[in-house]
Amino acid sequence: MNIQAHSSSAHQLRKPLVKNSDLTWRMHATQDVKYSISVVADLLDPTNPILAQACGRKIDNNLKTKRLAVIDSTVYEIYGEKFKEYFNFWNFDIHWKIIPGDEINKNVDSVIDVTQAMSSAGLLRRGEVVIGIGGGVLLDVVGFASSLYRRGIPYVRIPTTLMGQIDAGIGIKTGINHGEHKNRLGTYFAPSTALIDPIFLKSLDQRHISNGVAEIIKMALIKDHALFELLEVTASRLTPEMFSSDDPAIREIMSRAIAGMLAELEPNLWEAELARCVDYGHTFSPSLELIAAPALLHGEAVAVDMALCIALANGRGLITQTEAHRAIKLIHRSGLPIAHAVFQQELLERALVDTVKHRDGLQRIPLTDGIGAATFVNDLTAAELAAALTFIADQQRIFERDIP
Amino acid sequence: MNIQAHSSSAHQLRKPLVKNSDLTWRMHATQDVKYSISVVADLLDPTNPILAQACGRKIDNNLKTKRLAVIDSTVYEIYGEKFKEYFNFWNFDIHWKIIPGDEINKNVDSVIDVTQAMSSAGLLRRGEVVIGIGGGVLLDVVGFASSLYRRGIPYVRIPTTLMGQIDAGIGIKTGINHGEHKNRLGTYFAPSTALIDPIFLKSLDQRHISNGVAEIIKMALIKDHALFELLEVTASRLTPEMFSSDDPAIREIMSRAIAGMLAELEPNLWEAELARCVDYGHTFSPSLELIAAPALLHGEAVAVDMALCIALANGRGLITQTEAHRAIKLIHRSGLPIAHAVFQQELLERALVDTVKHRDGLQRIPLTDGIGAATFVNDLTAAELAAALTFIADQQRIFERDIP
Repeated sequence: MNIQAHSSSAHQLRKPLVKNSDLTWRMHATQDVKYSISVVADLLDPTNPILAQACGRKIDNNLKTKRLAVIDSTVYEIYGEKFKEYFNFWNFDIHWKIIPGDEINKNVDSVIDVTQAMSSAGLLRRGEVVIGIGGGVLLDVVGFASSLYRRGIPYVRIPTTLMGQIDAGIGIKTGINHGEHKNRLGTYFAPSTALIDPIFLKSLDQRHISNGVAEIIKMALIKDHALFELLEVTASRLTPEMFSSDDPAIREIMSRAIAGMLAELEPNLWEAELARCVDYGHTFSPSLELIAAPALLHGEAVAVDMALCIALANGRGLITQTEAHRAIKLIHRSGLPIAHAVFQQELLERALVDTVKHRDGLQRIPLTDGIGAATFVNDLTAAELAAALTFIADQQRIFERDIP
Repeated sequence: MNIQAHSSSAHQLRKPLVKNSDLTWRMHATQDVKYSISVVADLLDPTNPILAQACGRKIDNNLKTKRLAVIDSTVYEIYGEKFKEYFNFWNFDIHWKIIPGDEINKNVDSVIDVTQAMSSAGLLRRGEVVIGIGGGVLLDVVGFASSLYRRGIPYVRIPTTLMGQIDAGIGIKTGINHGEHKNRLGTYFAPSTALIDPIFLKSLDQRHISNGVAEIIKMALIKDHALFELLEVTASRLTPEMFSSDDPAIREIMSRAIAGMLAELEPNLWEAELARCVDYGHTFSPSLELIAAPALLHGEAVAVDMALCIALANGRGLITQTEAHRAIKLIHRSGLPIAHAVFQQELLERALVDTVKHRDGLQRIPLTDGIGAATFVNDLTAAELAAALTFIADQQRIFERDIP
């Protein structure tokens, strides 16, 4: 702490009004944040201690201890018994809080509901960790509640969707939608650990696999050309079965996506830098996602945004027409939309105004610079948006014509 | 980031079930937090640039810019015009959000209400700071809302009560009450700066001065014997007039209280260490504060807790009977209560159970070790509480007898 009395030179514009010399204290502290992300096969095999250890079970202490597990209701239906067997084996007294994991539940009420479960369970401030089990929405809500309860209690993330395992479940952001805005309220709050077992992906439907693939395509487009090529050759095999298998190509896709995301997050964990290449596909999509009816999944809205951004990059000569077609084709072949009825000029302009506020006054739009690299633009025009929409509409017509 | 494949030795208890070698990534990042606290006379004199600069006004740029000021309704009534004159002079376009600053409004609804004002004002994420003006409750609510909105927007604290200026307004804690619990939800979120002008204290009533004095007595008891002696000789002069004057003794009391608090906060800003001497008087008082009727001010509940803790320290031989009488007498002379009808054995035991959870399983009760130093105990018994209550009851009878 640095204490100083102001010298008069610090008050250039003021008259000598100071009765006493003013005092200033300068506070400075650093917070060290560490957490780990592990891909773990057979997480729920009772002989596998990794989850128990993540929940604070010590090898030399098997006393019954309390934990709160907050779990998505669908995940609980499918895997609840397996979780119970596991936690019983390791002598945990689990308080279960079962909540819906739909986007519509990503709100203040859900967060308060989870904090009330924490209160009812009577959790200690540091020693009785919370375990969040589910997709991106559930983990956002549980992470948010954990960050607020007693100003932060430790929690473990177990993402069970592809979106959660490669994106929403491995960073430190938490949040809820509010008013007309995606993730308008939230915190940065690292879990103690995130544990990823691909076996959970087996019970997803194809649409939710594609939802996660959208974020993998994002990583490929902005920073990993090899991943892009790997996705091209596997596009027809990106199924729940494959994602939960030990297929080497799929395992490489997963680990490249996770490693790529973590490498982007780590040096900018609190988003001091607002020009983030991982915001690719997230410039216009937040506004689309909130008004699309029937509802789009997050990755689907991102896919529509990415397709537009590919067209924008092509319009600026950042990628060739051939590259643009390859990229849009990959999105399409992955079962994702490239256009949407309400994704039109007016929405795009409105979305950009909101995003510019979120990016503190500049557009900071990440665009592909070739496939596998990113650049940022701050001077996008309405005319460019219009041209990109035309590009996408043409592409969409080709895809529709090709449907047998 | 440290990536490693688990070796089999990391899985002592598991069978060789791993289909692929498991992968672990270790994330590590540090967050640098800096903020300043200044005592500034004549903060609202338009020729004093300090507040304008704190709100982001550059000397070489006087363009009209937007800010959101969230202000306590009582403060707005008294000082609203002065603030408006000041902000007009510096060409700020202020959006005013006027809210009540009573403890009962320290809830989720108030926080959401403030975030909606942020949304309506259309604030940029980083460049358009929020200004919180009011007492501890208002600053807790505004700080909480600022920490959540877009996961954090910068804010300035202008505490206008004594409690705010020496305690609630100068740290990084934000929070609201929830359910039956004080500050059950909150965040750690530093303001960019806190500006303290003692002139605001002139319009406080005596009770709110005493409310703040309770926290000053706390600092004296746990770490500053000289401050204790200064309080003893000034106790009869601790009035709104004196606190807003340039009386040297009062100015020294203020700066010692602030400096003492900041010195305790800085090395433990996120409360990694749960044994905090500044929690003195805050072991039993949270439970009292929530049920006392008519309502107690925060400092009044702290005073009752401190008196008990003085008796507890005396019971353990940590301070002499003479010191105990001096300390309790100072609390009493400062216009603060030392006892309360519901502050009885049963409440104390219940309060301690809750506090032990908040302190992660240990009592970690700060007690005075002589006047001006602190120690922590983890083995307080019900019998000690009963004896301390008797000690206080005797003391209380003496004070009541002494009233003419």
